[in-house]
Amino acid sequence: MEIKISAQDEFTLSEKEIKEKQQKIKNVDNVSELRQDLVTGDWVVIATGRAKRPEDFSKNVRQLSNDDSNECLFCEPEKTNQEKDVLIYRQDDGDWTLRVFPNKFPAFSSGGEMELLSEGPYFAVSGFGYHEVLVTRDHERHMALLDEVEIAEIFDAYQDRYLSLMKDKNVNYISIFHNHGKEAGASIAHPHSQLMAIPVISPYVKLELEGSKKYFKANNDFVYEVMVEYESQEKKRIVFENDRFIAFCPFSSRAAFEVWVMPKYQQPYFERTNNEDKLKLAEVFKKAMFSICKALNDPAYNFYIHTAPCDGKDYPYYRWHIEILPHTSNWAGFELETGIEISTIEPEKAAEYLRKWL
Amino acid sequence: MEIKISAQDEFTLSEKEIKEKQQKIKNVDNVSELRQDLVTGDWVVIATGRAKRPEDFSKNVRQLSNDDSNECLFCEPEKTNQEKDVLIYRQDDGDWTLRVFPNKFPAFSSGGEMELLSEGPYFAVSGFGYHEVLVTRDHERHMALLDEVEIAEIFDAYQDRYLSLMKDKNVNYISIFHNHGKEAGASIAHPHSQLMAIPVISPYVKLELEGSKKYFKANNDFVYEVMVEYESQEKKRIVFENDRFIAFCPFSSRAAFEVWVMPKYQQPYFERTNNEDKLKLAEVFKKAMFSICKALNDPAYNFYIHTAPCDGKDYPYYRWHIEILPHTSNWAGFELETGIEISTIEPEKAAEYLRKWL
Repeated sequence: MEIKISAQDEFTLSEKEIKEKQQKIKNVDNVSELRQDLVTGDWVVIATGRAKRPEDFSKNVRQLSNDDSNECLFCEPEKTNQEKDVLIYRQDDGDWTLRVFPNKFPAFSSGGEMELLSEGPYFAVSGFGYHEVLVTRDHERHMALLDEVEIAEIFDAYQDRYLSLMKDKNVNYISIFHNHGKEAGASIAHPHSQLMAIPVISPYVKLELEGSKKYFKANNDFVYEVMVEYESQEKKRIVFENDRFIAFCPFSSRAAFEVWVMPKYQQPYFERTNNEDKLKLAEVFKKAMFSICKALNDPAYNFYIHTAPCDGKDYPYYRWHIEILPHTSNWAGFELETGIEISTIEPEKAAEYLRKWL
Repeated sequence: MEIKISAQDEFTLSEKEIKEKQQKIKNVDNVSELRQDLVTGDWVVIATGRAKRPEDFSKNVRQLSNDDSNECLFCEPEKTNQEKDVLIYRQDDGDWTLRVFPNKFPAFSSGGEMELLSEGPYFAVSGFGYHEVLVTRDHERHMALLDEVEIAEIFDAYQDRYLSLMKDKNVNYISIFHNHGKEAGASIAHPHSQLMAIPVISPYVKLELEGSKKYFKANNDFVYEVMVEYESQEKKRIVFENDRFIAFCPFSSRAAFEVWVMPKYQQPYFERTNNEDKLKLAEVFKKAMFSICKALNDPAYNFYIHTAPCDGKDYPYYRWHIEILPHTSNWAGFELETGIEISTIEPEKAAEYLRKWL
């Protein structure tokens, strides 16, 4: 059967380069693969670098492995065999406040060249990339409890690592996210964020890139500008705003009490945020996190940054932003089947309630 | 600000009809809305028919409300104020074996006309539709434990209700899904499936429709045929097959031990499956469910049907199928951010292990 590559538009490679790079899937243990859905073009990671035996997926084994350990791996990473720091921030007295190091069980790793792989009609990319962990010092004080300067420092570190990782020509997208609480998928309680630098673009961000371009062509308007202007004027979905950033419950919230933090100026690239704006961002982000945690009584939550890819192309219609998703419901069959999420409170009412806690 | 409808291609309505139907969002309590993301075109449901007060989302309240009740609502639905059955199957002695009735807390309801709504730049559809529950008699015996004839009866009932619901001209898509176990989002332990008949097409199915059409245009081949032929020939990802259906772990599995059940013949529409094929389907589905439940020690799971919309259009390149997702991991920040799921076992190894239990 002839090999048909459906994914080559993901990469800035010529057909010749693709042919040179393309190889049969090798099924080498401990090397992850990004596999592409033949129909939808979506990606999954087969993270065999974290491989378990088939027996380990049994319900009993999973329940055992969730047991809490008394020792925190992130309180003193240097004592628990963590890898070498790639970034460390220190106080004047030399004690560390924030550090970034490679994930011990990476979903992506930087060993070797990125390879295009194929098997029959299917297509994959070797799981080339970087997977880093960012840890703040205090074991208890998570994002909602840190002060604005501490939060600005975290965004500073995100940016620092982003700028470093994007230099690798095989990195086309960098995902920055934070899981807090077991229900939100945090396997370690100590507050930590993660960065994953990968060769393919986030499919969700791709939809936004395409949508914002389509909107511009249809309406000669920047869709995020239209959105921010409308929300600023209507006020009912705003949680908090200053002159540079706005936190609001989006009109089509995927979860109850979802909040987006977005710049009020046109900027596709998170990594170009200047120091002054990082402080403005920290102010708005802090208020959003604080109100969510008070209103929902310290819920589990995820947040992540959506930003333009670092693939060297221009994305003038896009605007970077943060999406905060408190864990207020379980997505089940309908959401898995359709991608349509069900939320049980109007974003307008959620925003009104969040404002009460500020 | 001028109203710009980005979604009219979802509906088979003329521009005039859209203008007539279009109304301002009314924020009437207890009426759901399907809201569209202005950028991506994706949909969410704001299910105010299930409305809670903002205070009810607090973590403590949520934990309390999860308490198990001693009385099963589905063992004797007629005694617990469930709505009237829309379908009931009985044994020869008159006792019921399966029944379908409207969900007491519907995410969609059939009262009134479907309306197109707008607010500023945003677009929504009134949450018109149907939300039904299908219950089998036994409280304990879930899908993996039923015999093939019982399973065929369930598919028969899915089909029966599908054919009924699709007659409503405002119904353009019918989602059929099943949640088993708390971790998979089942709020009631008694085995039950759900049907949601809605005016918009499942965004995930839309991606598949577009992808299969694109593949045909590029390769002059039916993508699902290519896939099934390749899997049948390679065998390594097959769990079980007969002459009409195949159960296999998809190349780009979203979850460890994910299994798809797919016809071996070209058929976009689940509802056109004939009686003989329903028995063949039940055989393959039963083997897939049984092996998953044995291998993973009775895990929580979701399964759902992906089938062509019932919007009157033709989808010749598509093939309906079932996707079974055992709950083997929590999707967290990276998955929420990107839509890229991380799985920690190769589908080939998962299939090999599942085959051992047959």
